Amino acid sequence: MARRPTLEFWYEFASTYSYLAVMRIEALAEAAEVDLRWRPFLLGPIFAAQGWNNSPFNIYPVKGRNMWRDLDREAARLSLPPVTRPNPFPQNSLVATRVAIYAADQDWLVPFTKAAFEVSFAKGCSIAEPQAVSAILDGLGLDGTSILKAATSDTNKGRLKLAGEEARSRGIYGAPNFLAEDGELFWGNDRLEQALDWAQGNRPGRMR
Amino acid sequence: MARRPTLEFWYEFASTYSYLAVMRIEALAEAAEVDLRWRPFLLGPIFAAQGWNNSPFNIYPVKGRNMWRDLDREAARLSLPPVTRPNPFPQNSLVATRVAIYAADQDWLVPFTKAAFEVSFAKGCSIAEPQAVSAILDGLGLDGTSILKAATSDTNKGRLKLAGEEARSRGIYGAPNFLAEDGELFWGNDRLEQALDWAQGNRPGRMR
Repeated sequence: MARRPTLEFWYEFASTYSYLAVMRIEALAEAAEVDLRWRPFLLGPIFAAQGWNNSPFNIYPVKGRNMWRDLDREAARLSLPPVTRPNPFPQNSLVATRVAIYAADQDWLVPFTKAAFEVSFAKGCSIAEPQAVSAILDGLGLDGTSILKAATSDTNKGRLKLAGEEARSRGIYGAPNFLAEDGELFWGNDRLEQALDWAQGNRPGRMR
Repeated sequence: MARRPTLEFWYEFASTYSYLAVMRIEALAEAAEVDLRWRPFLLGPIFAAQGWNNSPFNIYPVKGRNMWRDLDREAARLSLPPVTRPNPFPQNSLVATRVAIYAADQDWLVPFTKAAFEVSFAKGCSIAEPQAVSAILDGLGLDGTSILKAATSDTNKGRLKLAGEEARSRGIYGAPNFLAEDGELFWGNDRLEQALDWAQGNRPGRMR
């Protein structure tokens, strides 16, 4: 059997369009026969490096207004539940990201990721506090307390930092992103279909 | 015969994704039985109001790098000719926009717009100088010299200013945009299909 191509899915727990991608990527990737590697990372340090200490959707409120409306429309079009805005937005995603980084090779990375995004953007609840993240883990039948402890180890903090450095070195400046094996980077939920096509090797002649 | 819905198409001559929209909007609107109103405007003053004195693709070079690659990919996917970057980018679009504003009720607004975008983003040539814009008009069998003179009148400058104020009042912060009759604003070439659906009245129940 031919090896299936792999697409890396780089997402940030505080990112609105990462939510849309998280909710729909599995079905599309399965249909395209593309394997996924889920890559949680923190966008905050990357934003800080370009002079933003907040979400651009808050820094530029006119843009933010249209983004929330667009998110509602897109969620409806994609047959997802209505979006409820987490308060405050953006949520501090440090704890959730540490846990997801710790889960890199665990079979619960994807269920945890989806559950955290649903708590945040479908229910509109906080995922910022350790207790909130612990409760999500408990809800998956895992041991939230011990996972949170392990996720706070220096080793795991080092892995999180490394993921951030890798994101930067790949040219990532936002979320979500889809990164093909040849390094081709697709930014934004709107490019998921194109990224899957690319991973499958379907591309116009002049882009080969 | 039922009245066809109208969609306003707000575009900026220096905008990369406006180019993609300009090249494909007519066929899609015709297929959707939606009438278009072409609305040229200047994005510069809106960017300046949010603290940018250059294209965000230049201010944030990592984002700019991915945008140009994405533009190449999208042009290929949409079967458009390869993109050639105008130098410098962004082009000063004042003269072209003045002419397009002057042409608001003329049958040559669309041919002029398409020709200017092709000169800029397919041929990679300048549209910044009056002579360049005049040559585009001449190429359409028009009198470039007298049109440029008329476009520089105080009356026309006033209309350009008014278009900018209307853009701001509609919540516009980038380009291209598609504005439905009910005020629904869609930003970005990626939303053209959704905007046409909206104009036709096709929308999920909860978005009505």
